[in-house]
Amino acid sequence: MAMKVEYINPFLTSTMSVFETMLGCTLSRKDPYLKGSPSPEHEISGIIGLSGKAKGTVVLSLSEEAALKGAGAMMGEPMEELNADVIDAVGEMTNMIAGGAKAQLEQYEMSLSIPNVITGKGHTVEFPRDATPICIPFDCPWGLVTVEFGLVEQPAAVLS
Amino acid sequence: MAMKVEYINPFLTSTMSVFETMLGCTLSRKDPYLKGSPSPEHEISGIIGLSGKAKGTVVLSLSEEAALKGAGAMMGEPMEELNADVIDAVGEMTNMIAGGAKAQLEQYEMSLSIPNVITGKGHTVEFPRDATPICIPFDCPWGLVTVEFGLVEQPAAVLS
Repeated sequence: MAMKVEYINPFLTSTMSVFETMLGCTLSRKDPYLKGSPSPEHEISGIIGLSGKAKGTVVLSLSEEAALKGAGAMMGEPMEELNADVIDAVGEMTNMIAGGAKAQLEQYEMSLSIPNVITGKGHTVEFPRDATPICIPFDCPWGLVTVEFGLVEQPAAVLS
Repeated sequence: MAMKVEYINPFLTSTMSVFETMLGCTLSRKDPYLKGSPSPEHEISGIIGLSGKAKGTVVLSLSEEAALKGAGAMMGEPMEELNADVIDAVGEMTNMIAGGAKAQLEQYEMSLSIPNVITGKGHTVEFPRDATPICIPFDCPWGLVTVEFGLVEQPAAVLS
């Protein structure tokens, strides 16, 4: 089933709200676009699976600088290297963004998987072709931040 | 909540069964181990989120050779480069492994997210610290293949 444009706003508002309230960082939104293949490169990606009456994935992509600054803001102390605390903080940011969007999409009764954080220069996150991933870029003092998500509604017969 | 060793068998049998029946590839199991940090390197990782009364992630890690051979076996024609067909095939293998394990863990009423495939030499997949990921390595004619998973039972109060 095709991706609906109505999905965008919940992820957009959830991301801005998490950055503003949890990290004290004001995001400036740019135009969302359909993510083409091959995937853009990210240094650090937080990734969470959603399942329920719609299923999908949310990916928060951060530069190393944004991950360190964001984790530092969350923990109230400066972070200088990409350690387990920073990894956990990126997972938690992704969790809050996905949770906020999920709350605005309650008709799909989705629940969240645990977050995973992917690191490595030049890694790509590829979505299945039928998920039509949407990318929402934001600008902030820590550089560019993007949220990507793909969501597919489940036909009722598939639900068990 | 700590990871239970009883979780291992469903992922072990599901992986062996998917490779045997879907890909015609017999896996030879090696000893599972608790995955330490930092994560091992993979060229290609299929990743799926599970949620429900337990939540977690399943990662299928393949070398490029194993991904090409597996996708070729699945599609009945040789695959020579890491294209969108191969990416989708790796996602589908991960889906079947996670689905098979889920079926053996039915008391947790889990459902699956869409699969994502991560590529890039030297990328790592980091689990949250409370998920205690377990790695199950297998040997096969296509080289080493590993399945990693982390699963956390949800306290009843958290379920909504």
